[in-house]
Amino acid sequence: MQRGSRSTLAAATFACVAMSLSAQTPAPTKPRARDLGLPIGGAAGPLDAITDVSGVEVGHTTLISGSGKLVVGKGPIRTGVTVIHPRGKANPDPVFGAWFTLNGNGEMTGTTWLQESGVLEGPIAITNTHSVGVVRDAILQWQVGKPGMQPWGLPIVAETYDGGLNDINGFHVRPEHVISALDGAKGGPVQEGAVGGGTGMVCHGFKGGIGTASRRLPAEQGGFTVGVLVQCNYGARRDLRIAGVPVGEEIPDLQACIANHDPIPAGQGQRRPCDAPSSTRDDDDGAGSIIVVVATDAPLLPHQLKRIATRVSLGIGRMGGWGSNPSGDIFVAFSTANAGAAGGVDTVSVRMLANAKISPLFTATAQATEEAIANAMLAAETMTGANDFRVYALPVDRLKTIMKKYGR
Amino acid sequence: MQRGSRSTLAAATFACVAMSLSAQTPAPTKPRARDLGLPIGGAAGPLDAITDVSGVEVGHTTLISGSGKLVVGKGPIRTGVTVIHPRGKANPDPVFGAWFTLNGNGEMTGTTWLQESGVLEGPIAITNTHSVGVVRDAILQWQVGKPGMQPWGLPIVAETYDGGLNDINGFHVRPEHVISALDGAKGGPVQEGAVGGGTGMVCHGFKGGIGTASRRLPAEQGGFTVGVLVQCNYGARRDLRIAGVPVGEEIPDLQACIANHDPIPAGQGQRRPCDAPSSTRDDDDGAGSIIVVVATDAPLLPHQLKRIATRVSLGIGRMGGWGSNPSGDIFVAFSTANAGAAGGVDTVSVRMLANAKISPLFTATAQATEEAIANAMLAAETMTGANDFRVYALPVDRLKTIMKKYGR
Amino acid sequence: MQRGSRSTLAAATFACVAMSLSAQTPAPTKPRARDLGLPIGGAAGPLDAITDVSGVEVGHTTLISGSGKLVVGKGPIRTGVTVIHPRGKANPDPVFGAWFTLNGNGEMTGTTWLQESGVLEGPIAITNTHSVGVVRDAILQWQVGKPGMQPWGLPIVAETYDGGLNDINGFHVRPEHVISALDGAKGGPVQEGAVGGGTGMVCHGFKGGIGTASRRLPAEQGGFTVGVLVQCNYGARRDLRIAGVPVGEEIPDLQACIANHDPIPAGQGQRRPCDAPSSTRDDDDGAGSIIVVVATDAPLLPHQLKRIATRVSLGIGRMGGWGSNPSGDIFVAFSTANAGAAGGVDTVSVRMLANAKISPLFTATAQATEEAIANAMLAAETMTGANDFRVYALPVDRLKTIMKKYGR
Amino acid sequence: MQRGSRSTLAAATFACVAMSLSAQTPAPTKPRARDLGLPIGGAAGPLDAITDVSGVEVGHTTLISGSGKLVVGKGPIRTGVTVIHPRGKANPDPVFGAWFTLNGNGEMTGTTWLQESGVLEGPIAITNTHSVGVVRDAILQWQVGKPGMQPWGLPIVAETYDGGLNDINGFHVRPEHVISALDGAKGGPVQEGAVGGGTGMVCHGFKGGIGTASRRLPAEQGGFTVGVLVQCNYGARRDLRIAGVPVGEEIPDLQACIANHDPIPAGQGQRRPCDAPSSTRDDDDGAGSIIVVVATDAPLLPHQLKRIATRVSLGIGRMGGWGSNPSGDIFVAFSTANAGAAGGVDTVSVRMLANAKISPLFTATAQATEEAIANAMLAAETMTGANDFRVYALPVDRLKTIMKKYGR
Repeated sequence: MQRGSRSTLAAATFACVAMSLSAQTPAPTKPRARDLGLPIGGAAGPLDAITDVSGVEVGHTTLISGSGKLVVGKGPIRTGVTVIHPRGKANPDPVFGAWFTLNGNGEMTGTTWLQESGVLEGPIAITNTHSVGVVRDAILQWQVGKPGMQPWGLPIVAETYDGGLNDINGFHVRPEHVISALDGAKGGPVQEGAVGGGTGMVCHGFKGGIGTASRRLPAEQGGFTVGVLVQCNYGARRDLRIAGVPVGEEIPDLQACIANHDPIPAGQGQRRPCDAPSSTRDDDDGAGSIIVVVATDAPLLPHQLKRIATRVSLGIGRMGGWGSNPSGDIFVAFSTANAGAAGGVDTVSVRMLANAKISPLFTATAQATEEAIANAMLAAETMTGANDFRVYALPVDRLKTIMKKYGR
Repeated sequence: MQRGSRSTLAAATFACVAMSLSAQTPAPTKPRARDLGLPIGGAAGPLDAITDVSGVEVGHTTLISGSGKLVVGKGPIRTGVTVIHPRGKANPDPVFGAWFTLNGNGEMTGTTWLQESGVLEGPIAITNTHSVGVVRDAILQWQVGKPGMQPWGLPIVAETYDGGLNDINGFHVRPEHVISALDGAKGGPVQEGAVGGGTGMVCHGFKGGIGTASRRLPAEQGGFTVGVLVQCNYGARRDLRIAGVPVGEEIPDLQACIANHDPIPAGQGQRRPCDAPSSTRDDDDGAGSIIVVVATDAPLLPHQLKRIATRVSLGIGRMGGWGSNPSGDIFVAFSTANAGAAGGVDTVSVRMLANAKISPLFTATAQATEEAIANAMLAAETMTGANDFRVYALPVDRLKTIMKKYGR
Repeated sequence: MQRGSRSTLAAATFACVAMSLSAQTPAPTKPRARDLGLPIGGAAGPLDAITDVSGVEVGHTTLISGSGKLVVGKGPIRTGVTVIHPRGKANPDPVFGAWFTLNGNGEMTGTTWLQESGVLEGPIAITNTHSVGVVRDAILQWQVGKPGMQPWGLPIVAETYDGGLNDINGFHVRPEHVISALDGAKGGPVQEGAVGGGTGMVCHGFKGGIGTASRRLPAEQGGFTVGVLVQCNYGARRDLRIAGVPVGEEIPDLQACIANHDPIPAGQGQRRPCDAPSSTRDDDDGAGSIIVVVATDAPLLPHQLKRIATRVSLGIGRMGGWGSNPSGDIFVAFSTANAGAAGGVDTVSVRMLANAKISPLFTATAQATEEAIANAMLAAETMTGANDFRVYALPVDRLKTIMKKYGR
Repeated sequence: MQRGSRSTLAAATFACVAMSLSAQTPAPTKPRARDLGLPIGGAAGPLDAITDVSGVEVGHTTLISGSGKLVVGKGPIRTGVTVIHPRGKANPDPVFGAWFTLNGNGEMTGTTWLQESGVLEGPIAITNTHSVGVVRDAILQWQVGKPGMQPWGLPIVAETYDGGLNDINGFHVRPEHVISALDGAKGGPVQEGAVGGGTGMVCHGFKGGIGTASRRLPAEQGGFTVGVLVQCNYGARRDLRIAGVPVGEEIPDLQACIANHDPIPAGQGQRRPCDAPSSTRDDDDGAGSIIVVVATDAPLLPHQLKRIATRVSLGIGRMGGWGSNPSGDIFVAFSTANAGAAGGVDTVSVRMLANAKISPLFTATAQATEEAIANAMLAAETMTGANDFRVYALPVDRLKTIMKKYGR
């Protein structure tokens, strides 16, 4: 991309400040993994999204404004928050849940009680690393004001780091942004790419962000649905595999770079100008993180949901993640079955899928994770943020050519 | 005890070689904790035993033979094996279960699958440290030969170390001893003290072994029963508290000693003759271990049973255990509720007690653990074993006096 | 206490709004556990405080204002924040650390990375349940502004619930309160009782809050120090034991009550007027939580600090805690040894205490936990807060009488 | 393979009964992964084996005898035991270690103490599911008889299930087989395929068993070596990927079958005759297990080795494993650095690699796991065992063709 095109990009990208994107009509211009026929395995649900699990609602607030030099507290801003209501925003009935971490260089609040109780009360939120606190307290504020919701809680809030593109130390996510995402969440198609908490994220050296996918088991395996949503900000370029194909090795160029000829700011010294010739070095080295939310309607108990959350690692491994030291790879899984049970106050009856029937859900979880990561990269557009740092989108045409080269 | 009385003791103690004590009539001469009115709290079930949980069966094989100098492979033998069938020996229906460890210097096989599946398949066995393997494989042999049982498995076998009193490197527990305990197990009163796996154990510097107790919740708390069985081989004398009273500090004497004037064998150098004057030093320093099995009929799911197992630590702490480095303090909990569910092969219905109602079961678990430890010490008689090593029984009269001194 | 004396209490108590108490001269009028000679065991360091571990600094901000009827967002306010700098506020060198939870009905942020890395970077903070977020983000703000500190992070912030005495849904803790506590932290004696994060807390039905204690091992055990600080808000009255003595059973009265004759507000229906006759019912049922911070100068590695954190449970069990379902009993342990190692960027040399020598540190941890809990209750004064809810202080004279009755 | 060739196969395969294969000259006729140039990534050490980590020794005892109809207790026998001495059989100095489980339908004894202490004392052994006990106790017997070794212990013994090819309920592994493997272990090249504990194993529907591989980091990453040994018995055929290529989908035939026209025995009803036409159905469904041992000379502490063990999952995910419900996927990792430290009895000095430098070891672990699995399948020959059950070897020529088809 030439420097001359930058202002056009900015004009398009910066328009939607603090707007709940769940209320927007998504621009369906970019293909998703299934549009490209990527052979990841398994059959998706109708939306190929976490919202294929009945009741699940997703809301985003996306914050994009400013350009050029970073001024802490001013911008540029490339961040936001994404929320997931397991049973929808109007239904505070808790769900059974569990969590797992592949590499714990990150935060997910609320996991101590989730582990102890097996119960997930309230929404899940994902934001940037330095906004976990404000998002957490804002969820409590939101609950306190809603009749029928418990006026206290231990919210689940996770994060990945967007300090490359975003003025993360400006603390731009505010309580009203969180409440807007909570109230604006809905079912149906989910906006992907550089939206919500995923706005400023980088995945395998390409522009990342939010991605989603689902798998629906055949009737003879119970017909259950597994839906996954990722906030994708992890991985080295060289390690990226899609459906087993070494896509990262095939696209060593299009590395993140500084889009402006002006002197590169102090502390950015390792970054190279976009128009320098040697742009194939892989600077990123797998830093970053990935948060994965798994929803299912299969009647799984907490200890079984722990097993589900553990399988997310397998999908990440297949994409080329190693759970690198700087990465916060943290996963949460919940089941929308057993309405009324998790929040019961006496002895209740619950349905449990036998362990002997659980394996197809493991496969579905790993496959949906793979596809959600691919979808995050496919949906995102090239973005230029703080200090003119630019991260390129995964080029779809080159991806198609590479898949063909490797017989897929 | 005078040295002159030793042969009499031996004659009485060594009689029952390789006999399944579950078939014996217990000699009910010694008081239990509740006979003494020790104020541990809570109300016991009718037997004050793990067998108050309906269906639970316990079997012991006790191996006692020989006296005097240790000859590896010959004896003296002071060991055995104790088994617990969650639903009785004739009912292979699995139960929900979980485990926890306070200090892991010990072995409990089968815990990896227990943790993963939440299901406990088959019996639980407790033996000495070096007989875990033979007991494990013998359980498989036993299962293979029984119609209706799964012809494979991952048995739960735990241990504590009896190398002070027993020729542990003689490997005297044999498959037939295990099978005898498995087949001889029964409900009803449980033999305590120096029996089964607890035969050669030492607890807070007194003779320990097997102890059991139970708690029954009042009807308004669900009326559930919690039963505990311990194999008690842990703790320093000085730290022993019973119902909050510093019993160990009050009985600094009656330390384990060598009952014979002959030269103390090499490697036993720290041990003192029983008739030496300065027998108040506490050599043991908390070495040893404690295995605790918790049964309940409350309808708890695996993640809730994990919570139950965790509370065993509280009972041990109240008795004066610190989870010392050489101690293997490993606990397993199971629920006999939900018959047919844990081993189901499709979606099943299960009952679950709400977390909001679980706290009384936590208290009951800690209290029954305390009382089972006290019962183990109260039941055990003074024993002299390998190399004339002698461990004294907790003296009941002195205990009564001490309790009175401290207002209890 | 008579109703007429209430205004006097308020005048004294409400004076210190948003003041960092670490800069105050403590009022040393109330005896601590060691002043009373409570036989908890072990020998304390010179301060009997977490600050006996060299380098550790503690800061409090206490927020007390208003009285009478609760108006959300106005008050009454009875809350605050307490911070602990492992190596002092001026030394950002990380420490090795670990955590454990007895019952996870609570929050401690930052634990995922602590578990993964074994490293604790930055301060630890404790506040009320609904202020975890603001405290967390404020720590990041503080770090960002300090040269030499990492301009990002995953702060450790824990909480207990003060919604009985405090307008918790008023979200009164502000970033400046956190920064004040961080900057005002210091070594030396630690203010205890209703201060900092502990301001509005209730412990075994008495006024609780912050308590601290230490143990110093004899030279032949290495001479190491273990320091503990608790924010104590857990436990039922009836279960309280001090040094094994059933203090809670002996003081069934002095239950929390409503100090004002006016109609008790809606939602407070279970509370009784202070001047009603039947004030011996134990309403609290063990709700609440306890956060415990353990510091040591012993050269322990992360997996050994996990063992230390686990032993905190034993101290709580000895005091009469059961890890009840509504309780968030979460513990963090760190070692100030091995300066420069935990934050190293290449291969470093570290000192490690052999596991074979660790047991005395386990005992010290449990004992210091017991004493810190006792100190929290001994230091706190009777407090009246939101909706005239009153929580009484543990009466020292009665405690002395009870200890004597039980021979201690 | 034609039925006529069966007797020849048997003659060759059944010759080596109870012989320690570590003393044999391996027959180097089959290519390994690196001979085929499979693009798994990273650079192997000289042996491409776990023994590239200096000091590590491996021993096998392979038990093969009998053919035809299964008679429990007689055979056919297709089993054995493999042992790994972290520092060689003559050096009992413990190592730092840790473990992890992806799916816990299996056994690894000794893990409770490994987790607690961070120390791995003694050898690691792998055998069949029903021989864990005898192998465990035999290791103790072996230690007891060796001067300088501790005369007690908590051995690490893991297993996978060979009940398809082997008379597993005949309990054919005897103590002398274990001692032979322990004494015969050595460094240098490691025999792979159907040897030792891997003798009767099946991997992705092909003949599996023991495989090994290594990775050596470049000098600028520390020059450390990671060695992996697997006992491979997991996975469905359809899911097998090698270097991202869907090899399993390309070889739907060569499914396990009954080699004899005689009636298929009861209980084997789902198995098909080898000469039936429809042999492309994938019966196995991912049952089975995989045990993985990771050795490194990098100076890692226990909490870091836990991280290493966790990354094994990623390699399995890349090969097409999902951690299926019937699979025991259990991993142990140790470091041979820090000689003398793990077994120290006082404060010792240890070297620690900074977390910031650990990521290349994560990648190396996953890559070596992938290559070791491939090597296990490449080394194994077609085997016919109990009830004429036949499992085919991965056909090397077809593998080469498939890799080419997919551009690798």
